[in-house]
Amino acid sequence: MKSIKNPDKRTWTDLVKRPTNFYEDIEQTVASIFKEIQAKSDVAVSKYSNLFDGVNLKSFEVSKEEIAEAIDQIPSELKSAISLAKSNIERFHEAQKTEKIEVETTKGVFCWKEKRAIQKIGLYIPGGSAPLFSTVLMLAIPAKIAGCQEITLCSPPDKSGKINPAILYAASLCGVTKILKIGGIQAIAAMTFGTETIEKVYKIFGPGNQFVTVAKQFATKFGVAIDMPAGPSELLVFADESANPSFVAADLLSQAEHGSDSQVILVSTSQQIIDTVSVEIKKQIKVLPRLEIAQKAIANSKLILVQTDEIALELINEYAPEHFIICAKNENFFINGIQNAGSVFIGNYAPESAGDYASGTNHTLPTNGFAKNYEGVNLDSFLKSMTFQKITSEGIQNIGKAIEIMAEAEGLQAHKNAVTLRLNELQNATK
Amino acid sequence: MKSIKNPDKRTWTDLVKRPTNFYEDIEQTVASIFKEIQAKSDVAVSKYSNLFDGVNLKSFEVSKEEIAEAIDQIPSELKSAISLAKSNIERFHEAQKTEKIEVETTKGVFCWKEKRAIQKIGLYIPGGSAPLFSTVLMLAIPAKIAGCQEITLCSPPDKSGKINPAILYAASLCGVTKILKIGGIQAIAAMTFGTETIEKVYKIFGPGNQFVTVAKQFATKFGVAIDMPAGPSELLVFADESANPSFVAADLLSQAEHGSDSQVILVSTSQQIIDTVSVEIKKQIKVLPRLEIAQKAIANSKLILVQTDEIALELINEYAPEHFIICAKNENFFINGIQNAGSVFIGNYAPESAGDYASGTNHTLPTNGFAKNYEGVNLDSFLKSMTFQKITSEGIQNIGKAIEIMAEAEGLQAHKNAVTLRLNELQNATK
Repeated sequence: MKSIKNPDKRTWTDLVKRPTNFYEDIEQTVASIFKEIQAKSDVAVSKYSNLFDGVNLKSFEVSKEEIAEAIDQIPSELKSAISLAKSNIERFHEAQKTEKIEVETTKGVFCWKEKRAIQKIGLYIPGGSAPLFSTVLMLAIPAKIAGCQEITLCSPPDKSGKINPAILYAASLCGVTKILKIGGIQAIAAMTFGTETIEKVYKIFGPGNQFVTVAKQFATKFGVAIDMPAGPSELLVFADESANPSFVAADLLSQAEHGSDSQVILVSTSQQIIDTVSVEIKKQIKVLPRLEIAQKAIANSKLILVQTDEIALELINEYAPEHFIICAKNENFFINGIQNAGSVFIGNYAPESAGDYASGTNHTLPTNGFAKNYEGVNLDSFLKSMTFQKITSEGIQNIGKAIEIMAEAEGLQAHKNAVTLRLNELQNATK
Repeated sequence: MKSIKNPDKRTWTDLVKRPTNFYEDIEQTVASIFKEIQAKSDVAVSKYSNLFDGVNLKSFEVSKEEIAEAIDQIPSELKSAISLAKSNIERFHEAQKTEKIEVETTKGVFCWKEKRAIQKIGLYIPGGSAPLFSTVLMLAIPAKIAGCQEITLCSPPDKSGKINPAILYAASLCGVTKILKIGGIQAIAAMTFGTETIEKVYKIFGPGNQFVTVAKQFATKFGVAIDMPAGPSELLVFADESANPSFVAADLLSQAEHGSDSQVILVSTSQQIIDTVSVEIKKQIKVLPRLEIAQKAIANSKLILVQTDEIALELINEYAPEHFIICAKNENFFINGIQNAGSVFIGNYAPESAGDYASGTNHTLPTNGFAKNYEGVNLDSFLKSMTFQKITSEGIQNIGKAIEIMAEAEGLQAHKNAVTLRLNELQNATK
């Protein structure tokens, strides 16, 4: 752990920097796979599934039988846990529904804004050691509430050609329309272009390794939207003397186990808290099954002592953490002042894992400082707003002159004409 | 004009296709200019301003004196028109403010969602023949309502080193923080990286030519967000016998004068309307100052006859127009059924130019079919939502078990531990 005391403001830019990733070489690979899948569709998808996942599947689509089998395999205890999480996520995302906004801006000029679902979306769920069925809940539940018509889920199969049963269970529970055993770059390319068996989608959601990340970014070149750019997961805890050091250590470790490139930061106004948390981390880390990963992440973690809450807040806003835990006497100061964060956890009984699974908030959040300009996934991520205007003859008479003058000043005569014709007609009608 | 009668559904994919643009070669240019500006800051910005805009400026920033001079130059008639537009745009975007959303998802688990402004934003306003001061209103007004702290505006100077006074007037009226005489790729790169005189921004808004479009897309590689991908402007009108053919023709032409690559489409259930609109277009086009541009766009326009309103709606949703005018007896059918459009104009007195300037809706809208997955600029474009959760000791006891089970099933032991520690402490406390 790197201990930093009262860092000079001029060093903050470096202090908040995340480890840089070089994606240039990956982009070449991504570009060539995209090109091949665009040209050869399923044949190319098969080729890369074989190459990267080591499987040769007759069909990419998960069958009803496989889903039924998966449902049987899930212990009832886990089913109950998922059910509780689903209910909380549903409640919080249902509450995010918004009504039509309607304003008569000028007499006779009625403007309104309504949201419509993005009709076809794609979810990417990584395979590998940790089967992220919780991410299925976080993406499919709001998609369903939003009213997305087609929800395609891609996840890489294991060597035996299967997807983890918990992922299948969650997908089937949350109304995913089609589940495909396709992973990595080839999954993102297939959803971008569509193939014989995979429908083209309009927006792609979900986490992934660096290949998936670059592929999602690359997909935007072809008109597909993505949830947000991704980077390694991260947690920043602010703790003063009111914090429980053992809880803080446990939270930092829960982040550290995600990956060796995870970012873990403690900011405190108390040297004693920093010291005690350090001791606790050393104690707790020993028993973790993902010890090696956590150790690497902890080695790069930062323990930062600052003199006041004000300095802490300024530094935290500059860092823009994905997850931000507040354990402070003066918690409202931080709640009101935080400008840039993905999700905020308040008090000694709000561990980050609560938001990861079951509190109801979404866990798909902006990393890498992107909390400055991106928001986490929420109901609106699956909707787009459209505006409408209905203008009466009185309305166009009220704003017509202004439009004519402005259009003329911009040198757009035909824009002006479209109004002039109408105003003339109305004038003639009243003669 | 291309007249198409009852097109077979299998031809729709081609029918809704926009003319393709090849940006590959531009991307090379963009990449090298970005690299140079990243390395050499202002020196490189000067170099490219000289090269592309033919000016050699001592300072990029527009001075207070220049703004005062511009204000003096604007005729009072135009000032009044801009004032009316501003008031309507403000009214509609003010109404888009949303309250905090708060839910107690489980007893003791309080989740809420609040929006915060994106602190630093950049606006790009093209120069050239049409000074788009209306776009300044459309971007700066909601940015100000959202509470963005720094609003930087870049616009290319003319040969004499000036920005059009109407742009300066609108910018100063709407509270733009800093106006810079920088255009094209170099403006986007400067706002992406920041230089000695230009602050780095978090999100870039605004239209532009193909160089600006590619530069904005390229900027996202460096963590900057953009409003949306751009393409040539477009209008689709649905008109049945209730439409006024002369108005429809005027609206199609107002779109056509934007650029020779503009997309103009009429869908109708009435051959007679199509015929009359054609005649009207030929009559009205003659007197336009931007005749040559309009002629090219009209030559590529499509007049599509379909048999029913239902087919029309399905085709329109497949096309996903930026602007969609409804002149139909059965207008509610289209209002309720439209899924993919940027902004919708209803009735014979709602020309597209009303929304371009003064009705109150925003005119920065998704083109090129992007209305399927992107929304137009609105108040939320300048905000990001953050989630919060405050959990009491009772709350963590209510959801803790579920978190433990799910974390364990995902193989994330440290996530589980963070909860177990807290549950144990609470259990011990009650003993």
